[in-house]
Amino acid sequence: MMKLRFMAVVVMLLSCTERHKSTAKGSENEYTVESVRASLIRQEDTIIFSVIERARFPLNSPTYHQHYASIPHFSGSLLDVVLDYTEAIQAKSGRYINPEENPYKGILPPSIVPHYNFSQFLHTAASSINTNKNIRKVYFHEMLPLFVAFGDDGNYAQTAASDLSILQAISRRIHYGKFVAEAKFRESPRDYEPLIRAKDRKALLKLLTSKNVEEIVVKRVEKKAMVFGQEVSLDHDVKGNYKVDPAIVSRLYKKWIIPMTKNVELEYLLRRLD
Amino acid sequence: MMKLRFMAVVVMLLSCTERHKSTAKGSENEYTVESVRASLIRQEDTIIFSVIERARFPLNSPTYHQHYASIPHFSGSLLDVVLDYTEAIQAKSGRYINPEENPYKGILPPSIVPHYNFSQFLHTAASSINTNKNIRKVYFHEMLPLFVAFGDDGNYAQTAASDLSILQAISRRIHYGKFVAEAKFRESPRDYEPLIRAKDRKALLKLLTSKNVEEIVVKRVEKKAMVFGQEVSLDHDVKGNYKVDPAIVSRLYKKWIIPMTKNVELEYLLRRLD
Repeated sequence: MMKLRFMAVVVMLLSCTERHKSTAKGSENEYTVESVRASLIRQEDTIIFSVIERARFPLNSPTYHQHYASIPHFSGSLLDVVLDYTEAIQAKSGRYINPEENPYKGILPPSIVPHYNFSQFLHTAASSINTNKNIRKVYFHEMLPLFVAFGDDGNYAQTAASDLSILQAISRRIHYGKFVAEAKFRESPRDYEPLIRAKDRKALLKLLTSKNVEEIVVKRVEKKAMVFGQEVSLDHDVKGNYKVDPAIVSRLYKKWIIPMTKNVELEYLLRRLD
Repeated sequence: MMKLRFMAVVVMLLSCTERHKSTAKGSENEYTVESVRASLIRQEDTIIFSVIERARFPLNSPTYHQHYASIPHFSGSLLDVVLDYTEAIQAKSGRYINPEENPYKGILPPSIVPHYNFSQFLHTAASSINTNKNIRKVYFHEMLPLFVAFGDDGNYAQTAASDLSILQAISRRIHYGKFVAEAKFRESPRDYEPLIRAKDRKALLKLLTSKNVEEIVVKRVEKKAMVFGQEVSLDHDVKGNYKVDPAIVSRLYKKWIIPMTKNVELEYLLRRLD
């Protein structure tokens, strides 16, 4: 037993090299345009995993009915219950102390854990930007119907937990626009400052946009959806039988995730000199 | 807008064919040895995704300290807080009405949702089998140290939520042993009945075991860990740079997940004729 534990520690030490670095930084200088981009790429995997996992369940519409569950002192759907209470626990556990995280719920209980010194890379105005209300609307009305089957299998609690995982992953990605904008701003403040002072949204958006990079992202997430959503077999490769249509994943990015991230970048920059 | 919604519905209808069937069954006859095996294969993906996601964070040991968080009327670690409260919400939302789900916590609030008619495929003794205490111990002491890096990035709430996802996925897989055992029993009751009456654990375990199938599972999860944990790039395939060492994933299965599933099968069968 002791030997096994020792082996586990050795394996852990030896295999550290391949591990992803933590995203929370101790120093404010550790965010760069490059590191921010690497994080966005890694976050694609999280989003696609969570979409594939949600597609295990059909739509399960009772999850979203206003009066399906009867909860004393609570008005809302089962999804509201799971989202509100889970976020409350996560808030108590200190999740939203990290500036990379943004809650869906407006009022949350305070953290019960000792203060952790997360990087203060962002301008203070960052905390005033939260577009989750919009993300939630787009997710349930536009995105979700694209990748779940009709039907009802009774697994409403799991469905709600699964939705929350996607909502958190997408929210994190879109609000990472604050870090993208700050890193870009620090790289070339002279380009941004006059446009920010002039509140020239159109020119700022143009400066923030790289059509080439966006096209690569859209193609890469489609490829990732093929890789992660395939049926892996030892005998043969099962092609074309994906758990979620890869074209839909690229559409989620092209139509909503990328534009909404850029909008967060824009809103952040407009407050960057306040 | 209306047109888009209509398109979404059309896409949903057209793409239903590739979707995974729900695992909860309306009729008790829908579980077969084949369907149970298909579910176990699909669950591999969920387990591997969740392990890859946990490996985004380092060990984050304060998550597990008994006195790190100060919670009124609660004694335990941050992990205990997140696990207990999240399970409570999930219980209220009806998760554990589904016989495929087994909670970690002993006492949970009742479901607040209308009764859903889940399949009664299992013998009534099934509900008395819950090996989560054991799974929890093995997970934190043996499994987790194998695939996370040392270190602390402050994301304790996310770490605990991530642990819970794996714990739930592994628990579901191991307790699926009840369905495996029932399906096998129904296929050849004459082979099982005398051994059950004789309480012949050794002979039952032998009858339940297919070395060949087990070896295939261990190899397949290693391959899946390679596929799902690779860095997907548009330009070139990045080989050998996996988010979690595939050999560790196969070890998790070989050393713990498969034996613990078989143990659930055995315990279930021993009570099958009660």
